[in-house]
Amino acid sequence: MLRWEPDPEADPAGQVYTFGGAAPVATLAPGSLLDTWTLDCFGGRVTSVDHLASQRVDPRYLNPQTGPFWVEGAEPGDAVAVHFASITPRYARGVSSTVPFFGALTSTGRTMTLQPALQERTWVYEIDVPGGVVRYAALDSPFTADLPLDPMHGTVGVAPPLGEVRSSLTPGSWGGNMDTPEMRAGTTCYLGVNVPGAMLSLGDGHARQGEGETCGVAVECAMDTVVAVDLVKGVGPAWPRLEDDTHIMVVGSARPLEDAFRIAHAELVAWVAELTGLSLLDAYQLVSQTALTPVANVVDTDYSVVAKVPKSVLGAVSVMGGAHERLQALGGRA
Amino acid sequence: MLRWEPDPEADPAGQVYTFGGAAPVATLAPGSLLDTWTLDCFGGRVTSVDHLASQRVDPRYLNPQTGPFWVEGAEPGDAVAVHFASITPRYARGVSSTVPFFGALTSTGRTMTLQPALQERTWVYEIDVPGGVVRYAALDSPFTADLPLDPMHGTVGVAPPLGEVRSSLTPGSWGGNMDTPEMRAGTTCYLGVNVPGAMLSLGDGHARQGEGETCGVAVECAMDTVVAVDLVKGVGPAWPRLEDDTHIMVVGSARPLEDAFRIAHAELVAWVAELTGLSLLDAYQLVSQTALTPVANVVDTDYSVVAKVPKSVLGAVSVMGGAHERLQALGGRA
Amino acid sequence: MLRWEPDPEADPAGQVYTFGGAAPVATLAPGSLLDTWTLDCFGGRVTSVDHLASQRVDPRYLNPQTGPFWVEGAEPGDAVAVHFASITPRYARGVSSTVPFFGALTSTGRTMTLQPALQERTWVYEIDVPGGVVRYAALDSPFTADLPLDPMHGTVGVAPPLGEVRSSLTPGSWGGNMDTPEMRAGTTCYLGVNVPGAMLSLGDGHARQGEGETCGVAVECAMDTVVAVDLVKGVGPAWPRLEDDTHIMVVGSARPLEDAFRIAHAELVAWVAELTGLSLLDAYQLVSQTALTPVANVVDTDYSVVAKVPKSVLGAVSVMGGAHERLQALGGRA
Amino acid sequence: MLRWEPDPEADPAGQVYTFGGAAPVATLAPGSLLDTWTLDCFGGRVTSVDHLASQRVDPRYLNPQTGPFWVEGAEPGDAVAVHFASITPRYARGVSSTVPFFGALTSTGRTMTLQPALQERTWVYEIDVPGGVVRYAALDSPFTADLPLDPMHGTVGVAPPLGEVRSSLTPGSWGGNMDTPEMRAGTTCYLGVNVPGAMLSLGDGHARQGEGETCGVAVECAMDTVVAVDLVKGVGPAWPRLEDDTHIMVVGSARPLEDAFRIAHAELVAWVAELTGLSLLDAYQLVSQTALTPVANVVDTDYSVVAKVPKSVLGAVSVMGGAHERLQALGGRA
Repeated sequence: MLRWEPDPEADPAGQVYTFGGAAPVATLAPGSLLDTWTLDCFGGRVTSVDHLASQRVDPRYLNPQTGPFWVEGAEPGDAVAVHFASITPRYARGVSSTVPFFGALTSTGRTMTLQPALQERTWVYEIDVPGGVVRYAALDSPFTADLPLDPMHGTVGVAPPLGEVRSSLTPGSWGGNMDTPEMRAGTTCYLGVNVPGAMLSLGDGHARQGEGETCGVAVECAMDTVVAVDLVKGVGPAWPRLEDDTHIMVVGSARPLEDAFRIAHAELVAWVAELTGLSLLDAYQLVSQTALTPVANVVDTDYSVVAKVPKSVLGAVSVMGGAHERLQALGGRA
Repeated sequence: MLRWEPDPEADPAGQVYTFGGAAPVATLAPGSLLDTWTLDCFGGRVTSVDHLASQRVDPRYLNPQTGPFWVEGAEPGDAVAVHFASITPRYARGVSSTVPFFGALTSTGRTMTLQPALQERTWVYEIDVPGGVVRYAALDSPFTADLPLDPMHGTVGVAPPLGEVRSSLTPGSWGGNMDTPEMRAGTTCYLGVNVPGAMLSLGDGHARQGEGETCGVAVECAMDTVVAVDLVKGVGPAWPRLEDDTHIMVVGSARPLEDAFRIAHAELVAWVAELTGLSLLDAYQLVSQTALTPVANVVDTDYSVVAKVPKSVLGAVSVMGGAHERLQALGGRA
Repeated sequence: MLRWEPDPEADPAGQVYTFGGAAPVATLAPGSLLDTWTLDCFGGRVTSVDHLASQRVDPRYLNPQTGPFWVEGAEPGDAVAVHFASITPRYARGVSSTVPFFGALTSTGRTMTLQPALQERTWVYEIDVPGGVVRYAALDSPFTADLPLDPMHGTVGVAPPLGEVRSSLTPGSWGGNMDTPEMRAGTTCYLGVNVPGAMLSLGDGHARQGEGETCGVAVECAMDTVVAVDLVKGVGPAWPRLEDDTHIMVVGSARPLEDAFRIAHAELVAWVAELTGLSLLDAYQLVSQTALTPVANVVDTDYSVVAKVPKSVLGAVSVMGGAHERLQALGGRA
Repeated sequence: MLRWEPDPEADPAGQVYTFGGAAPVATLAPGSLLDTWTLDCFGGRVTSVDHLASQRVDPRYLNPQTGPFWVEGAEPGDAVAVHFASITPRYARGVSSTVPFFGALTSTGRTMTLQPALQERTWVYEIDVPGGVVRYAALDSPFTADLPLDPMHGTVGVAPPLGEVRSSLTPGSWGGNMDTPEMRAGTTCYLGVNVPGAMLSLGDGHARQGEGETCGVAVECAMDTVVAVDLVKGVGPAWPRLEDDTHIMVVGSARPLEDAFRIAHAELVAWVAELTGLSLLDAYQLVSQTALTPVANVVDTDYSVVAKVPKSVLGAVSVMGGAHERLQALGGRA
């Protein structure tokens, strides 16, 4: 097991805010565990309802990532398998906010209008890990609500193709800021490798998140996380694949949102055909009747959609060389 | 209880294929039951894997509707509440197909390309109502899969505003072809009334459907359906609202898909604010952390997205004057 | 020549606000002239900078159309050719405005956000027909600018297919609210006929309009208009085609805007192939290097894009049976 | 004047294919000329109708750029002004092609469908510089057409913000692959500086291009180009601004295409307000009636739209400190 910690005292400029473009911080052996933690998307600088991110965080320094890690032996064309063994809020507090010209229900720097921004506000959530509760408290009335704790990582990714370096605010074929609640403990994420060593990073912990991350900010918190990492040689997927005990999934990221849907479903149809031996049209038909399609985010620089089918409809199949079961067992030993 | 039956022997041109534009077939009293059935989207003319819809169905005569029914006392500004008490496949068979230039994973008459169409194929599903099973059988290999029966209506709607008459292939603020699996037995749908009498119709039964209805065609079948209908005076919603025992929901329909998302979420935020007394920004925040957002369809002339929140996070609220509970009790007497 | 006049004193509810769904007001013989006029989009009820459309116009009664006219002998599959012989502002005044939640640079009822609307304002333009000038005057400063007069019709269309009735605020395959400055005197518009008699209407005069109609409202004015109308049997185009002395054009209308682009270009490629005998890929190549693509509107319920190529690159071709030249000659006799 | 030449014999991997991420090749003094040339988008490796790009060009090595050049004194917040003094095809031949799953009238890696790709073909154009002609020759028939020569650069850009490195196939706020015919000799392009030295590059010459670059490939050719470069301190625009003798313009790049439109128009409205002293709503109104909006490209990873207004409607204004006139004079001395 590799234990690696970010330095929260470092100058913000000293953290990593991109996929690609940074030197590796450590090396991971395939088939091993990484025990680490991640800063929240604001680098821990927003902690009270009186804190406005726009005043406390340099916009160049949002969404710091833990990593990148060099995965030994990873070559373009391989898949890195990242199994989330445990994801636990590090502190008893999470924060959310509205951000000027960011979010699904406001005009933005792309869906540009002449209207003024919505008011910037900050919400603070109590997190009760043993109780499994995230407590919402309204700002303008005494209303509160206890929501189920459901920790996840908004970001996990590798270096992009074509020599690009992409902001950690962006999702894509390399993973990145997909912001799907499916990225919870128990899920294995398969990412196609674009550069030697893969350059794996993760961050952007959420104590919970609605599907779509509508206001653009989930219940953001630092996370203690253990991942089990492996390499599946020669089967690098074009887009991120996920697997849990019951479903296989693909995450598509693009704009407009229907293109994210098309990517997720077209890749899922091809994967189902490959797993089952079905013809492409037969797989299209089976996916059409069995898919669940939860929206992931409609706020990032590209939007993300998850397409998933139950393993139960696929018959006896071997998914990604059995990496999920293997890493689950490895993670269980953490 | 009103018993009304379509005439399946009628000339295809004798069925109704629009929302708006047709004379009422019967009158419904608020607080009463309607026991009826609906033809499948092909008017029952596709029943074998050797049948191609393009050869057997005039494209002007797709998706026949049962109705419209005049709802007594319905005036613009009211809501018609339609509770699905039971939805049962009428026959032991459902069909699906690929349709040239229709569906999410093909170019279409709008997302127009120069590529040839995908091959037109028809799949036939055995439906075992007592067993709760819909049986998929591949065309190009011996693969089969038993899928859970989950009957629903693709369409339910009223006459549109602005004097428009809209094809039953289209969803919108009036309901119509929303194609969401949430429209199952146990759900109440609230539709804003645009014309006196509301002019309620329904159809397009699906034995089951994946989220997104990816190939454009679900497991289509004729349905025996009982609905309990009521009127909620003076609170006609701008977009269709749904309610079941655990969630409130809004269906947004538009292109691009993010606009369907925006409509569903903005209307849900406003509804949550109205129910709870939360400020708009507090409601935005609560929805952002608690919403589920299953895609409904990405194939119709406009796309549909469902946004839903659990009632459990709203505290003690009274939804649409308690119509859901009232109609559920009424439906239970069917 | 048929002379037909709308009745501006009629109750607003007495005007026609749809394509389809209205009885014909008169009959046109192919190869004849129609001399008529059209009310402005506000029915003449906004005439001063102190008038707000939201206070003076019932939103059900926007964009009144002159017509529909029954075109003798028009059958589904034919094209109606409408040549604009002259378009002249009827009064010395035009108006424009911002409309709450309507326009390209504001959130709308579809691109829905939680932001408040932009302020509603009305601008009045002096129109000097002999001088060819439309005079802009700022509301908040003394700035003025003389703009070239360039009269056009925002709407021209026939009854839609599938038994639909569509608002005159909407463009589509039947024409309608395309809002392109190309619809000026000298242009011939070809519309595919969907119902016997075609049911031709026109309206929504603009003294001038920018490409995109960005704020959603052009320099709106009543228009004195003469059109020459003919029938081209058996060649009804799927989408509106335009022709002037130098270019052939197609107008595509859809959302997102790239689908409007795809429709316009795919139909233009097919048309060029048909005219020149080029293979589809050769026509794709030729259009790719020679097309002009002015945006028409990004504000209506669907957006419109024009794709056009110079006739000069096509060699000697006969367009739509020579209807443009024939109607131009006919119009010259008005 | 700086004379700098790319090395066409270098290993493809030795060229630069990104904005950002590369060391400067030379230093430019503000107020000076750069005399250089650019390879075509295929690096000169496609020269015959028998050459298929997919077989001759490594997809990692498309669209090589000349540069980046360090602009002396350029700091974040400044604008680099790049005036195209002359753009001349270097050879008597240009090429175009269809590329599998790339272009506006095909499904792509984002607008993903299950259809097979269009056939890959290559067209070769004779370029007659003195005659001002680009000669189209069909592949499947003897048809030819002489098209006007109208040389332009598809790409010109600086290093992006947020530490990103972006492929030269992508347009954005930093410029890049905007693919607009407006980038011709006589135009000045203003780019906001994101990093010290700006890191200016250019490439992707087109002998001519239709608006939209429909098939995804213009008449590609190596270009001999002279640019006059200056720095405008402290007024770095958020999005690329263009100026020629008659118009000011903004290029917006995003998906869906309406967001590119919104960016271009919102930035143009703000610029017009700033130049004229008009209020924002008055400027919105003026732009709405006077803008031209030619589509640039609907094929790249983001799409681009140009919004432009004639200087003549703005009154006497000073644009970007008079850089256009100053650089035009400088370029005239080349």
